[in-house]
Amino acid sequence: MTLKMNAEALHAFLADAFPQVSDDFHVDSLAENAITVRLRVDDRHLRPGGTVSGPSMFALADVAAYLLILAHIGARALAVTTNCSIDFMRKPAAGVAMIAEARLLKLGRALAVCDVLIYSKGQAAPVARANLTYAIPPEPK
Amino acid sequence: MTLKMNAEALHAFLADAFPQVSDDFHVDSLAENAITVRLRVDDRHLRPGGTVSGPSMFALADVAAYLLILAHIGARALAVTTNCSIDFMRKPAAGVAMIAEARLLKLGRALAVCDVLIYSKGQAAPVARANLTYAIPPEPK
Amino acid sequence: MTLKMNAEALHAFLADAFPQVSDDFHVDSLAENAITVRLRVDDRHLRPGGTVSGPSMFALADVAAYLLILAHIGARALAVTTNCSIDFMRKPAAGVAMIAEARLLKLGRALAVCDVLIYSKGQAAPVARANLTYAIPPEPK
Amino acid sequence: MTLKMNAEALHAFLADAFPQVSDDFHVDSLAENAITVRLRVDDRHLRPGGTVSGPSMFALADVAAYLLILAHIGARALAVTTNCSIDFMRKPAAGVAMIAEARLLKLGRALAVCDVLIYSKGQAAPVARANLTYAIPPEPK
Repeated sequence: MTLKMNAEALHAFLADAFPQVSDDFHVDSLAENAITVRLRVDDRHLRPGGTVSGPSMFALADVAAYLLILAHIGARALAVTTNCSIDFMRKPAAGVAMIAEARLLKLGRALAVCDVLIYSKGQAAPVARANLTYAIPPEPK
Repeated sequence: MTLKMNAEALHAFLADAFPQVSDDFHVDSLAENAITVRLRVDDRHLRPGGTVSGPSMFALADVAAYLLILAHIGARALAVTTNCSIDFMRKPAAGVAMIAEARLLKLGRALAVCDVLIYSKGQAAPVARANLTYAIPPEPK
Repeated sequence: MTLKMNAEALHAFLADAFPQVSDDFHVDSLAENAITVRLRVDDRHLRPGGTVSGPSMFALADVAAYLLILAHIGARALAVTTNCSIDFMRKPAAGVAMIAEARLLKLGRALAVCDVLIYSKGQAAPVARANLTYAIPPEPK
Repeated sequence: MTLKMNAEALHAFLADAFPQVSDDFHVDSLAENAITVRLRVDDRHLRPGGTVSGPSMFALADVAAYLLILAHIGARALAVTTNCSIDFMRKPAAGVAMIAEARLLKLGRALAVCDVLIYSKGQAAPVARANLTYAIPPEPK
């Protein structure tokens, strides 16, 4: 299978469709069924004590899975998140980027499923895991 | 059972512990096993098209459940979210506040479980549902 | 809205489509957006110590939500479970039936979402909670 | 880290603690942070049409994750499942065993987290994915 979008195209899509958050995220690598996305941690992602907030990790997992799906189906499609289950397992390290590694487990006509591991950059043990389901709209005729 | 914190005390706790987001949230009502929390929707909660973002709804569900648990155990306790599963069911209405109604289903020594329905203010059908688990640290001696 | 199937029709459907488990379940009540289903606890549902097993509670939640959806869309439709998240919160009481109370939160064209509370009969505190999503196949022409 | 139980010890534990289901499951391989468990599919696991039922896949995911945790903490511990989220992604193949591959993502003092992929034997695409959390009781003094 050939991907319909590469990392550059995904960055351009993010900047166009989500200008208020696109600078937060960077696609570090993209393969057929896997993507690595980095969250550049900024003050607004932090909780007191310097820990990255839960909603910021949720957003990172969501963006990573979303971009991986768009790479397959193209930017024309308005996939929407229908379900996410996330486990927060360890405290994130302070002052470093967070890395999401997402895998595509299913890409059906109507639903796509990914799972994601989130790390503090440079740490071996994952900080969080998530799985996400997206509804894919029918292709326009 | 008597609650250890009322809505006023919860607001004071939020302002003290989470100053960067405390203005976003307001406790509309608090009962023994239920809380209603409002998200004052601001530009930074929106996606293009005026829809409230998934991470903003996640944050609202998390804050509502967290405050309900703190009302029971007191602000001394650093409860942490260990799991959240969230379903996005409908598109939020534009330009209105979002309302989370959380119920406390279990308050154990180590774990607490809540579920949450999220509405666009003035709409009957829920926009999202979530369940959240919190780890409760042992009480200091 | 008028339901397409009543409790009697749901029982007949279960006996026809799932003969190996239909005797385990009984619809105690059915309303527009809510159903109560009872699991008649048998030896094969138990773990050592007389506790109802996790898979048996999962099955009860799944059947309750499934029947509630079928009551709306009719038995013609082969809805399939796509996601379930379940929290086991308390130990079930020994020697009593289990009761599932399911609510219909969304019934869309392609997806339906329910949540469920599971009780040991006669106990006030829920043993488990679950949410389930079903994919609904397109209506035949 | 040395495991406290090998596959043989896990089989002996299953036969002793869960005699009614122990014959259904077989540990195919066990490594430090991963286990492969097979479900020998029997009539009672099937739905009409020969498909393995959802509760049977839930049970397989639960057993695989549970045995992987017991391999680390020993059979003395009565770990209990507190949460499971499962996605059913494809129809299982008929007439073949099901294989669960579980990974240990966190083993804390109080909580352990695993994720699991479930396959029909001989198929490359996963049928289901699950994540499970277990509460680990304090070690006896």
